[in-house]
Amino acid sequence: MLDKAIPDIVIGRLPLYLRTLQTMAEQGRQVTSSQELGEYLGISAAQIRKDLSQFGEFGKQGTGYNIPYLIEQLSEILNVNRTWEMAVIGAGDIGHAIARYQGFIDRGFKVKMIFDSHPEKIGKKIGEFVVQDAADMVARIRAAEIKIAMLVVPAQHAQAVTDQLIEAGVRAILNYAPVMLNVPPEVRVQHIDPAVHLQRMTYYLD
Amino acid sequence: MLDKAIPDIVIGRLPLYLRTLQTMAEQGRQVTSSQELGEYLGISAAQIRKDLSQFGEFGKQGTGYNIPYLIEQLSEILNVNRTWEMAVIGAGDIGHAIARYQGFIDRGFKVKMIFDSHPEKIGKKIGEFVVQDAADMVARIRAAEIKIAMLVVPAQHAQAVTDQLIEAGVRAILNYAPVMLNVPPEVRVQHIDPAVHLQRMTYYLD
Repeated sequence: MLDKAIPDIVIGRLPLYLRTLQTMAEQGRQVTSSQELGEYLGISAAQIRKDLSQFGEFGKQGTGYNIPYLIEQLSEILNVNRTWEMAVIGAGDIGHAIARYQGFIDRGFKVKMIFDSHPEKIGKKIGEFVVQDAADMVARIRAAEIKIAMLVVPAQHAQAVTDQLIEAGVRAILNYAPVMLNVPPEVRVQHIDPAVHLQRMTYYLD
Repeated sequence: MLDKAIPDIVIGRLPLYLRTLQTMAEQGRQVTSSQELGEYLGISAAQIRKDLSQFGEFGKQGTGYNIPYLIEQLSEILNVNRTWEMAVIGAGDIGHAIARYQGFIDRGFKVKMIFDSHPEKIGKKIGEFVVQDAADMVARIRAAEIKIAMLVVPAQHAQAVTDQLIEAGVRAILNYAPVMLNVPPEVRVQHIDPAVHLQRMTYYLD
């Protein structure tokens, strides 16, 4: 069993390791080191070794990490050695882009349905999807046993939609609205907010 | 002058404080506390006080923080008490959504131009913009003295485009491609990668 007491900040670095290893694998690489991973990611080699050692013994001193093996192990640890179905809430520009994005499937995720509450959007096609009525959202998500939602609604509606998602059984929300959400402790929230990243960089600009 | 030796992880929290304060201000609020900010953000009150104290004395013991004043101060610290013009590179679905997104302007940013290299996209209108030929990118960005770019190109082109952006004088890149970029130390990179956030949450799901 996995040790769920590992700090979330460590868990947050594992997807970065996995992404970097997958890029290396696509280049036909077989072996890497904590030094090389660290240089790619701007994280110290010691930190990477310490993070990985919390989950097992993945590399040998002097021979480095076997890339395909470490990908397999990290995928298992992160529960992405399977495909998670997701609901997208909001069929605006960004919801549209997410629903058509092809980059999720290799990383454990697949958009399954998309909802909106605007009459002019309901029934419209986006790629392979038909936009469904948000009035049916709770029932449809619950019936499909979907646990992950991407929330792409205006900020003022984000909390009300979140409450419905939780009622529908959703346990992980990727929130694109620039507001904090109140959720019970068993529900995870992560944010996508480009302005936050931009402001972190402008600090350093003259 | 600002002390540039403050750890980047502290700088990374300031935009979250600013966003939360701006939400409070929109609700007509005047005063908050490190406790309340901490509850919103899942960060300890002590951490928030310590972060802010690195930049000055913004609140009084027992009376809390004046919201408009702290917004003004954080905006100045983060250099977003002005509007930064940005270039978007890549006019696919996500580039499209970014170019039309209305949420940047209140937070210090404005898309100024968008580029693509595909003949069928060059010249097309996206909102108020006409997609420009990527062949002219270096000259146009340099002439406009744009320092920030949002990179929304396929992963395999990301590094080559980055090299051009740096040549054009760009100093901050928000990278939507799921690959690491090699940049000189004076250039900042931040990533937007939804799969990384999703994987951080699936760790906790059964």
